[in-house]
Parts: sequence; structure tokens; C-alpha cells
Amino acid sequence: MVFSQKDIISINDFSKKEIIDTLKLAEKMEPIARSQEKCDILSGKLLGSLFYEPSTRTRLSFEAAMQRLGGGVIGFAEAGVSSATKGENLNDTVRIVAEYTDALVIRHDMEGTARYVAEQVDVPVINAGDGAGQHPTQTLLDLYTMQRLLGEIDELHVALVGDLKYGRTVHSLAYALAKFDVKMSFVAPKELQMPKEILHDFSKSGIHVNETDDIHDVLNYVDVLYVTRIQKERFPDPQEYSKIKGAYLINAKLLEGSNVIVMHPLPRVDEISHDVDNTPYGKYFEQAFYGVPVRMALLKSLIKK
Amino acid sequence: MVFSQKDIISINDFSKKEIIDTLKLAEKMEPIARSQEKCDILSGKLLGSLFYEPSTRTRLSFEAAMQRLGGGVIGFAEAGVSSATKGENLNDTVRIVAEYTDALVIRHDMEGTARYVAEQVDVPVINAGDGAGQHPTQTLLDLYTMQRLLGEIDELHVALVGDLKYGRTVHSLAYALAKFDVKMSFVAPKELQMPKEILHDFSKSGIHVNETDDIHDVLNYVDVLYVTRIQKERFPDPQEYSKIKGAYLINAKLLEGSNVIVMHPLPRVDEISHDVDNTPYGKYFEQAFYGVPVRMALLKSLIKK
Amino acid sequence: MVFSQKDIISINDFSKKEIIDTLKLAEKMEPIARSQEKCDILSGKLLGSLFYEPSTRTRLSFEAAMQRLGGGVIGFAEAGVSSATKGENLNDTVRIVAEYTDALVIRHDMEGTARYVAEQVDVPVINAGDGAGQHPTQTLLDLYTMQRLLGEIDELHVALVGDLKYGRTVHSLAYALAKFDVKMSFVAPKELQMPKEILHDFSKSGIHVNETDDIHDVLNYVDVLYVTRIQKERFPDPQEYSKIKGAYLINAKLLEGSNVIVMHPLPRVDEISHDVDNTPYGKYFEQAFYGVPVRMALLKSLIKK
Repeated sequence: MVFSQKDIISINDFSKKEIIDTLKLAEKMEPIARSQEKCDILSGKLLGSLFYEPSTRTRLSFEAAMQRLGGGVIGFAEAGVSSATKGENLNDTVRIVAEYTDALVIRHDMEGTARYVAEQVDVPVINAGDGAGQHPTQTLLDLYTMQRLLGEIDELHVALVGDLKYGRTVHSLAYALAKFDVKMSFVAPKELQMPKEILHDFSKSGIHVNETDDIHDVLNYVDVLYVTRIQKERFPDPQEYSKIKGAYLINAKLLEGSNVIVMHPLPRVDEISHDVDNTPYGKYFEQAFYGVPVRMALLKSLIKK
Repeated sequence: MVFSQKDIISINDFSKKEIIDTLKLAEKMEPIARSQEKCDILSGKLLGSLFYEPSTRTRLSFEAAMQRLGGGVIGFAEAGVSSATKGENLNDTVRIVAEYTDALVIRHDMEGTARYVAEQVDVPVINAGDGAGQHPTQTLLDLYTMQRLLGEIDELHVALVGDLKYGRTVHSLAYALAKFDVKMSFVAPKELQMPKEILHDFSKSGIHVNETDDIHDVLNYVDVLYVTRIQKERFPDPQEYSKIKGAYLINAKLLEGSNVIVMHPLPRVDEISHDVDNTPYGKYFEQAFYGVPVRMALLKSLIKK
Repeated sequence: MVFSQKDIISINDFSKKEIIDTLKLAEKMEPIARSQEKCDILSGKLLGSLFYEPSTRTRLSFEAAMQRLGGGVIGFAEAGVSSATKGENLNDTVRIVAEYTDALVIRHDMEGTARYVAEQVDVPVINAGDGAGQHPTQTLLDLYTMQRLLGEIDELHVALVGDLKYGRTVHSLAYALAKFDVKMSFVAPKELQMPKEILHDFSKSGIHVNETDDIHDVLNYVDVLYVTRIQKERFPDPQEYSKIKGAYLINAKLLEGSNVIVMHPLPRVDEISHDVDNTPYGKYFEQAFYGVPVRMALLKSLIKK
């Protein structure tokens, strides 16, 4: 075990050392994730994969991770296929699937679901996103991507770009980065800036933060542009939305001459132009891949021999 | 082979000895179902899992059972994903999936489907519920639960509670219990009592049966309360329904001081209060687990080496 | 490798020798497909199964093929379960799933999708049907069925029957057969005859073709009746449709005394009567089975050790 928890519910439950040890274990998993090495350490084990909301990346990378380790998967990819349609409540469903399996991964649209489920069952529970709540395996794969592509996370300068007000992903990532000796730049239109309480938490802890609404300000000195989507629904005025969307569009021309890597939790819509995909800047597909070794590390650590 | 049939269609096809031998084999499967032991006896084998109706417990426990034995699963969890949407008839679909696999498990809303399918294909077919028809693996896991938790089934006193008129599950279970030397109590509102022809069959065979509409009558001397849901649709008068629902609600207070175990085929809605879940009375989650070793025993017996 | 392509997009990419070598390899796969022999040559490998349209036969036989070889499968059986519902475009989805897997199989309703996808990703891509485009694994299993049941394909006389105008399957099959030394009869109502450009291609290459609208003309001397569905939508006049449907109905009485085998890509609706199913003429279920060893041969050849 590289961490002490029975469950993976929130990145906030991890100490810096536990994060570092998890990323180290993920690195050992990489050759298996690339199918350059075989592994059957979880053969005979079963993962219950309970996706009450559709997902491609998270669900498929968990299923890939489990199978690359020799294990099997049962579950559902949308609530409609489960007994939820017969009126069965969440509690009964998860307790039953826990009886059949060695660990559960759950995605649900209601915040707090994963922790509630973890309290109901004896098997380990991994939170694969619970509404406005947490999505800790995303944060771990984000950190792994930075470390894997740029070396140590300490000393990095990371710019979080886009919707910093409502974005669950960037909030978790910011708190996790704050455990390291990093610099952060928050790049957002004034309507979507990082919430005051998060800024307050950081200033209390002596974290160096730089706020701006102009992406050009940071391009020359940050190591990572972590981009998130700006949603139309946030703007009452469609023209205002169009203007802002344009100002935050990441394309190959913008990046030219800089030294950044561009990350994105995906799915993207049009905040990163496709002309970035095959440049050395665009690392979001590689980032998606790194979800597999990170989730393998978690499954290996949580599921008892 | 612990039984002679090619297929598992109805519990009525089993002799008492075949039931006992199946339960014995299930007991041997338990350490594998709990992943305390590894097994790859069905590696390379495939189960075709054809669920024309949604299901959590039955589908997932079959998939778990097959994978715990080293086998694989193909199929669909709802009719919409199959070629049924292109107008293909059931006959063609099952014959084709039978060509790809070593056994089929099928759930369908039309009574008689499983036996029809079994006649069309060479591979073994397991009935996972066909409408108002049979659901034999449910009955086997019910019997296994009683034997596992209370010792021999002979000499037990089992109360069937709730909707005994329309409940397919309790009809099958009652007939199966009648093969053993048991006592049965039928506890139901007068609108939902056990059908006369079943009572007649039992009295002909000399089975001791006790009928009542008051659950308090039986609480002091039965070993098992097997609870089923009372459906609102059965009552023209909503007030009548409410009154009866209240009279049949199983909660921790009711059970206090008794010596029963509470079973339920699940899903429940509100006929058993959640305050029973973590008492020594509530055994329905354990019962759900026992579906795995029972289905492992069937798969192991049916699929040819 | 029995062929040189990275991907399986169109049967036209195969030389005659590559087809023959693929069929030879499929024959070696048969005992594994029938689970008479075990094989774990692809253990630890993953197939990404991306079905944007529902399918029973193609999807399940690919999943069976992969698992019979010891590999695993991740993916989706309909677009609704994927992130397509969040607006993610095809390009991003396939690039991500390619990061998780060792090969992709894709079905999509838009012609050209498979080749586009193959250009985006490094892993091998197998086209499982792209709208009006190609479905090469169907053609390979059609050829395999003929060879397996009748010996060498050279010297056979194959009648293609039904809708030859719009039928993608028969176009691909005809071009593939044209690589061999075969005779072909095209049996279709005049509204649905083989397109002129295909006839032209064949006459240029010196292929012997016989056209008729009466199935009785060919029954006495062809080896194979390859039947496809005539769709109601092709006829403005419902009476005309009924008449033609009747004239092309294949039943046991029609086949009596002939020496043909009847094939069909399935699903059928009512163009072949069920009384043919269990005669020695009806080979379409066997044909469906042959999809497994053929797809095993492709997966084995494409996925790198």
C-alpha cells in the first residue's frame, strides 16, 4: 500500500508523500499499460464499474487498467440498464454489487455519493466523479502527466486557464499542486475567476499565485497550460461569450516559440484548436493515456491479495 | 454433472437429490466466489448473456460467476443494443450467439422463452427469468441461503410473506421447499393469498401448510421470513393498499426478540425497513452474494470441458 | 502477418494471396473458436470495440474472437453511452481509446469513417461497417464459408440474389469473388440489378457473369445462393413489392432436389423461410459462426506481440 485509505474519495485525503508514492507506482505500471509487459496480479479479481452517468475516458481507462492487470469487470455504463429503473435505491445496488466484487468504481451526478457508498460497503471504493464534488483520479493523472513529461513537480510553474470559478477539475488540481513547491497562474475572464476562498486558502499557506485575464501574460514563463472549457451557459450575453471564447482559444500560432505543454482533462469542444494536436505542445492524448497506469497503481494498491 | 438436464429452465426439473448436489457444489465454489481461491476451470470458455430486460443482480452475478471461474462473457444488457432493433427475431439471435459461445443465459419478458430457446440451440441454456414463468437460479440461491445459514433445509419452518398470489418467486420456492421435509406458513392479505391450485398440490402431497394474514402469528416459531413486495397496482383502493402495506412492513422493532432470518429476492422498495439491514436478522445482501457460488456451480456443471 | 496492411478497411486492399492466407489462418483458429483448444496468445492485450450503431453478430463475434485468444475488450455498444453525448467529436474519442488499447474495431453510419480513423491512430483499425461503405470482415467470412463448406473457391458458381443495386455486402463480395476463377450469377428484379459500373468492371476483367430475374434459372447449376433482403422502401408501389418479395422467397420446397448451399449475411427478415433452417441447404448460422475464426485470424495478425 502506497497510501493509508481504504477508499479513493478526494485528492484532499492524500498527503504529498502518498501522492508521490502513487505516481512512482504508476511509473512501474507503464510498461504493462503499454502492453510491453504482461501482468496477472489481479487475475480472479473483479471490479464493479458503476457509471450512473455516461463516460468514455474514465470508464474505459478503469476497465483497461483492471484488465491489463489480469482482472475482470462487471457493471453498467448508464443507470438505465441497472435495477434503478425498478425503483431500487443506490444503497441496495452498491451493497449488492460489492458482494460480487473486490472493489467498486462509481460515477454519479450527486456530490457526496462516493463517500456515502464507501461507508456502506466493505470493499474499496474509487470515486470516478460525483457531480460538483471530487474526481481524484483525474487529479492524480494530471500530476502524473506533469511529472512524467517535465520531471519533478516541485519548481514547476502551472497556469490554469479558462473557467476557474465552476471547474471542479481545476479546483482539485490547484489544491493538489499547492502541496508541492510550485508557482501557479490563474488565467480567467473576470466572470470566471478562481473563487475567493480558494485564493484565501492559498495565501494563508504562502502559495505564490499570479492572477490575470490575458493568456499572453503567462505564455513566456509557465511550463504547463492546463486548459478547461468555458461554457456558454455562464454568460447571459452571447456576444460577451463569443468575445471571451476567442480570447481564450489555444491554437498553434499562439503557442509558437513558447515552451509550454498544453493539457486538458477532455472532452474539449473548441477551446483548443485541432492544429495543436500533433505539435509538441499538445499533450492531452498522452495525458489521457496516463490515466491507465495511474488507475492501475490505485487498483493494485487497494485490492487485497 | 450434479444433475441430468442439458438446460436449467425450471426448478421443477430438479429432483431433491439434484438440488442437494447442486448446493453442495455451490459450497465448494464459495472460496472462489469470495476470491480467496483462484480458479481457471472455464478459461477459454464464453457465456452468452442475453438480457432482453434490465437486471442488476442476476446479470452481474452470472457475469461475476463466469469470470471467477476464468471464463469470459459476451452479450447485451437490454434489447435495444441487439439486432432486435433491425427486426431480427429471437430465434435467429439466440442461434447466432449460441454459435459464438459455450452456454447461454437468457432473461426475457415472455413466459416460455427459455424453454423455446433451449430447443433451438445445442449449447446449455439457463433461464434467468422469463416473465411470469420461471427463475430457477433464484430458487436455488434461496435454498442455498437457508442451508448455508441454518443448516439442513429439512426440519425448517419457512414463512412466505407478502404477495403470494402473483409472486413467481414464491411459487417456485414453495414447490422446491415441498420436496424437503419442511413446514411452511403463508402470510398474505386475503387479496393476495397463495393460489388454490398450489395449496391443493401441497395438501395432496401431505405438506404441512399454515395460512394466516397476520405476520405476528408466525414470528415466534418460524426460522425464515421470506418477504416479497406487495404492489400498489394490485389494489383498486389506495387506502386499502396503504393499510395493508403498513401491516406487512418488516422493521427492526417487529423482529426484536424473534429468532428469524429475513430474506428477500430484491429489489425491495419499502417492504423491509432499512433499520433491518445491519441487524443479525437481515440476510438479503448475503443472500444476493450466494447467487454467485450457486451460479458458478451451474456453469461449471453445464459447460463441457 | 498474412497481409501487409496495418488496418483492415476494405476488401479491395487485399490481394488474392492475402485473402487465401487469411482464410488458411482462420482454419487454424477454428478449434479455438469452438473451444476445443485453448489459446492465450493475446492475453494482456485489449481490443477497443467502438460501435456507434447497434450490432449483434459483428460486435459479439469480435468480442468472442478476442476473448477466445485470451485478450480483453473495452468499448461501447451504442453512441449514447460514450462522451459523444457531451459533444466530443469522433476524432478525440478514437484517439483516446487507441491510447488504452492494442487495436480498434469500429462501426459507424458514415461512409469513410474507418479509413479516417485509421489515419488518426497508430494502432490497427478494423472496419466493422461504415454506412454505405465497406464491411470487409463480412466478405472474408463469406469467402471462408464457401471454401470451408465447398472446398476451393476457384471453380465455384455463386449466385447473388435479391437487392444487388443497393446491397453493400454483395458489391464487396462480388469484387472479392472476381479475384478468383469463379462464375457468378446475378439474380435480381429489374429495379434492383447490379449497378452498370460493376458489370463494366467485371466484363473488362473477363469475369463470366450471368444476369437473370428468375431464381429458377440458376437453381440447377449454382453451388451457392447468397441471399440478401429486398427492402420495402425501394418500391413506391406496395403491390409491386409484394409480388417481387414472393418471387424471391427461398423456402425448402424451392430448394428440393437442388445442390446449393444457402448463405445470408443476416439479419434476415422473411426472405428465407424458417423451414430452410434445419435442412442441409441452410448454412447461414454456420456462416455466422465462421465470423469468429476469421476475426481471430485478423486480430492475431494485426496485434503486435
